[in-house]
Amino acid sequence: MRMVDIIEKKRDNYALSKEEIDFFVTGYVKGDIPDYQISSLMMAIYFNSMNDEETVHLTEAVLNSGETIDLSGIEGVKVDKHSTGGVGDKTTLVLGPLVASTGAKMAKLSGRGLGHTGGTLDKLESIKGFNISLTSEQFVKQVNDINIAVAGQTKSLAPADKLLYALRDVTGTVPSIPLIASSIMSKKLASGADVIVLDVKIGEGAFMKTLDDARELSRTMVKIGKAFGRKVVAFITDMSEPLGYSVGNKLEVVEAIQTLQGNGPSDLHTLCLKIGSHMVHQAKITETLEEAEKLLKKKINSLEASDKFKSFIQAQDGTYPDLNDYIHAKDIVGVKSEKAGYVKSLNALEIGLSAMRLGAGRATKDDKIDTDVGIVLNKKVGDKVDEDEVLAYLYTNKKDISAELNAVLKAFTISETAVPKKELILDIID
Amino acid sequence: MRMVDIIEKKRDNYALSKEEIDFFVTGYVKGDIPDYQISSLMMAIYFNSMNDEETVHLTEAVLNSGETIDLSGIEGVKVDKHSTGGVGDKTTLVLGPLVASTGAKMAKLSGRGLGHTGGTLDKLESIKGFNISLTSEQFVKQVNDINIAVAGQTKSLAPADKLLYALRDVTGTVPSIPLIASSIMSKKLASGADVIVLDVKIGEGAFMKTLDDARELSRTMVKIGKAFGRKVVAFITDMSEPLGYSVGNKLEVVEAIQTLQGNGPSDLHTLCLKIGSHMVHQAKITETLEEAEKLLKKKINSLEASDKFKSFIQAQDGTYPDLNDYIHAKDIVGVKSEKAGYVKSLNALEIGLSAMRLGAGRATKDDKIDTDVGIVLNKKVGDKVDEDEVLAYLYTNKKDISAELNAVLKAFTISETAVPKKELILDIID
Repeated sequence: MRMVDIIEKKRDNYALSKEEIDFFVTGYVKGDIPDYQISSLMMAIYFNSMNDEETVHLTEAVLNSGETIDLSGIEGVKVDKHSTGGVGDKTTLVLGPLVASTGAKMAKLSGRGLGHTGGTLDKLESIKGFNISLTSEQFVKQVNDINIAVAGQTKSLAPADKLLYALRDVTGTVPSIPLIASSIMSKKLASGADVIVLDVKIGEGAFMKTLDDARELSRTMVKIGKAFGRKVVAFITDMSEPLGYSVGNKLEVVEAIQTLQGNGPSDLHTLCLKIGSHMVHQAKITETLEEAEKLLKKKINSLEASDKFKSFIQAQDGTYPDLNDYIHAKDIVGVKSEKAGYVKSLNALEIGLSAMRLGAGRATKDDKIDTDVGIVLNKKVGDKVDEDEVLAYLYTNKKDISAELNAVLKAFTISETAVPKKELILDIID
Repeated sequence: MRMVDIIEKKRDNYALSKEEIDFFVTGYVKGDIPDYQISSLMMAIYFNSMNDEETVHLTEAVLNSGETIDLSGIEGVKVDKHSTGGVGDKTTLVLGPLVASTGAKMAKLSGRGLGHTGGTLDKLESIKGFNISLTSEQFVKQVNDINIAVAGQTKSLAPADKLLYALRDVTGTVPSIPLIASSIMSKKLASGADVIVLDVKIGEGAFMKTLDDARELSRTMVKIGKAFGRKVVAFITDMSEPLGYSVGNKLEVVEAIQTLQGNGPSDLHTLCLKIGSHMVHQAKITETLEEAEKLLKKKINSLEASDKFKSFIQAQDGTYPDLNDYIHAKDIVGVKSEKAGYVKSLNALEIGLSAMRLGAGRATKDDKIDTDVGIVLNKKVGDKVDEDEVLAYLYTNKKDISAELNAVLKAFTISETAVPKKELILDIID
């Protein structure tokens, strides 16, 4: 088999066989096939796409390039949740304890943030003492004991994906639905859960820019899951504005705790109830979705969900935050509206990048994070604003933040006429 | 400027600016831009093509990556001829002396053969003593003295093309019209001629498979020539069967001499008269094309063309062949037809590959050539064949040639009903 023949076959819009897909994935990981052949193949796939069968074979080849997590030691249905990445997306912090409080098993491996999106591990590590390095035995035992554990990846899951993604990132071949779908699913399948709920974000701050693309990506991932005997449900949610009000590590932990106690922002609250009820229902804790949602509301009201977060933090050596003495940013500076009206749009990407530049995120992998800083929105799309009223607060340890004040102001568009609130959940594919 | 932005721009079907094209060509030659980014860009160009302006800028950037030949020391209009490569294509051997005998200046740099196509340098070097290594001064002086010189490239002409072509060859990105056009034209422009006649081959044994593609390639090259103030004429000619009867180095020299003396195959004879008359007319030797063709016929009949070949060979230290004692193949084996009928098709690619395997060509750059071997066709498309009549003769120094006997037999398709002769010249674009 010659790599150039595989490239030409895809270039000429023929489907690749399982053998051909295995050949290029394993050859690439071994170093037998050079970057320049893989990148031209990736561009040919960008243009001619892959059918469902090819996409499943690609996912399988990438999955088989590394280790997989064995969760068989955990009793019951293991549920996992994955977001394609957004700004202010602290759903895992809420959903984990919330779902675990119903008895479902939440066994989650998580990653760090890069660029304008944050990562669950960074948010958890902003909690004093929190340990994300669990052995497999600790991980399994903790889920059996308290229904939840979140850890960093220690094993080499889907190393082919890491290689392919790094190459795609610099060769203009990221936005291909079969490539994105197989990249996400190979890692999720390697993590071992039985039920995977995906949150596919669309909008400025997200991978997918249109509802059609998000639907196709979702359908592809659901099909891949099915081919591997897993249950996959995909939510398509709006990421044109940030989720909730807070962007930044400790700020998001606070908002997660408020949401678990029933005092969170309504968009985050609703999203967690909807995604959570699918997880609980799929985990066979309740017979219907409606019962699942009712159960989740009960767990919030009874503070059992919030208590579960506490025991989860303690199980992983963390100190549960005292919300009155938790955020230690030197300055909190308001960004004021220059005119009265209604918030017409609020650019999630710009808010995410601004928070990153304040120190809440990483521009490159080696950057250090300042866990105390970030942005707290005071207004979101649809809100009425007076002249000079605060649109957002910048939590900062930097002296000169004039550029960020300006960037955050520009992220808001104010309209003279009333604007409806954004619809958050745009579709559910299962 | 970031390379990934240039890739994404072309991927999204926008035209690249001159600055962007210069950036990636010079960056690639310098080693600042890696193969894997260039190969994904080449694939994006394969899919989204380039407009005429981009193609001219690419040609210019590739041309400027190296040296150019200064032919200003030669008086008069310098004419050059280039074929996109075919099987049995000895036109340069005929056209060079033929056109030079009229007074036009033929200053040609040539290359070696690879794969199923032969190279003019290899054919000339099969002549005893022939020297293809001329200094610039020798080259210019010889053209001034006898109107013709053919030499190998010593200067580094369009090195970016060499790099790009090698990469395209292994990444499935060869068959892109703007990339082929700029590759050919950058080298032709660097060689310094005023008039360039291109012979674009189509068919199994050629780059271009359809007349439409060949026309688009031709039009693109004519436009590039115009942008650089050169006159370009493109002939589109059939290469579904070999040109003439002989394939192999010395065998082709013999056929060229026969053609210069008026005894060559009619297809080769006609092609050389047609291309030659354009060259002579463009070189302003005659006022009209018709006069040019008349003049060429006169030069053949008077043996002036044949004498010019003799003085050309002698000027470059070669010994003019004694045709009675020139080919020294150990065996000449006939391939006989298994049935009677008419030759319906004769696969040029298979004949070229078979001749290569007999030793007449190179499978890889480092292979040595056996100048005495090759294939002489006895029948071509449209010819009547009896059962057991010889279709072709294999000139060989190898013992076991059963595979080649079979391959050559298979290259012929015999039909029971009469078949028309192939049209050779399919279009002329200028």
